[in-house]
Amino acid sequence: MQETNLYTITVPPMMKALGALSKILDKAAAYAESKKTPKRTFEEALLNDRLIFDQFSLLMQIQRVSDNAKNGIARIAGIEAPKMEDAEKTVAELQARIEKTLAFLKTIKPEQLIGREEAKVSLPYWNGKSLTGFEYATEYLMPNFYFHLVTAYSILRKNGVDVGKDDYIGGLPLKD
Amino acid sequence: MQETNLYTITVPPMMKALGALSKILDKAAAYAESKKTPKRTFEEALLNDRLIFDQFSLLMQIQRVSDNAKNGIARIAGIEAPKMEDAEKTVAELQARIEKTLAFLKTIKPEQLIGREEAKVSLPYWNGKSLTGFEYATEYLMPNFYFHLVTAYSILRKNGVDVGKDDYIGGLPLKD
Repeated sequence: MQETNLYTITVPPMMKALGALSKILDKAAAYAESKKTPKRTFEEALLNDRLIFDQFSLLMQIQRVSDNAKNGIARIAGIEAPKMEDAEKTVAELQARIEKTLAFLKTIKPEQLIGREEAKVSLPYWNGKSLTGFEYATEYLMPNFYFHLVTAYSILRKNGVDVGKDDYIGGLPLKD
Repeated sequence: MQETNLYTITVPPMMKALGALSKILDKAAAYAESKKTPKRTFEEALLNDRLIFDQFSLLMQIQRVSDNAKNGIARIAGIEAPKMEDAEKTVAELQARIEKTLAFLKTIKPEQLIGREEAKVSLPYWNGKSLTGFEYATEYLMPNFYFHLVTAYSILRKNGVDVGKDDYIGGLPLKD
């Protein structure tokens, strides 16, 4: 029996999306590698590209996907998230960050999130104001998580990496 | 008391996002108007722009946001969604479509979605296969809804319309 609760609407979709992002990043690395010349490689250029000049780079979009996942879930649960230094410079380092983010999400037990609808969630730049756990999850966390995921996808798509909607969705458990 | 269920995680976030999209579209129309010359207007050009040449245009992205909202919710509820002809050509017509989509969502009662986790949901191109209502909502509907919303936003942002993350999020019910 599937249940709709603050755990099932956040952690599993985020874990699935992080897995999809990891596969997309593998395609990105292979694509950058295929374009290299004897004198130049392009992975760094791809990771530093942006959709729009004053938005975050691909590398930063992926860091924000990770932040939304680990920090957002930790905030609802009322626990500390693992700190990450934003020091990644390569696809391999971003993959390691995705792994660490997934490892943290795997430690979260449903009961740490279930029933946290009325928990107070605050961010440093909200000047002491707060949302409820439910508002935070549905009006802030998931929309922001998908925002950075879609933007990362679009940066790769724009640069010619062979990714499509199926890569973004990451497969579906279709059954007869 | 806020409850997490198949209604609260879909209809209210979609209604909020459609409201935000409507305001963003007003900014887009004003921006296109500000660029017009005695001989040319640019609203149509903006609506036909794409982030990437083989993706949907802005106009089509907004139609897909509407489709995801009305068709997706109808599928989970097991009812018919209002048909829309995809005949929009102007911002005013897209605004009317958003209004009609919102009007449909307003007719949905929570009890039409609550408890539909195990309902069978199928799409024409799934060859008779299906997802459960819960899987459909969390693994397909909401990720796709945000995909088209973020892409619409990015097309406008790329063209210089003055929109930021706050416009995308559409305000937060912050409290002391």
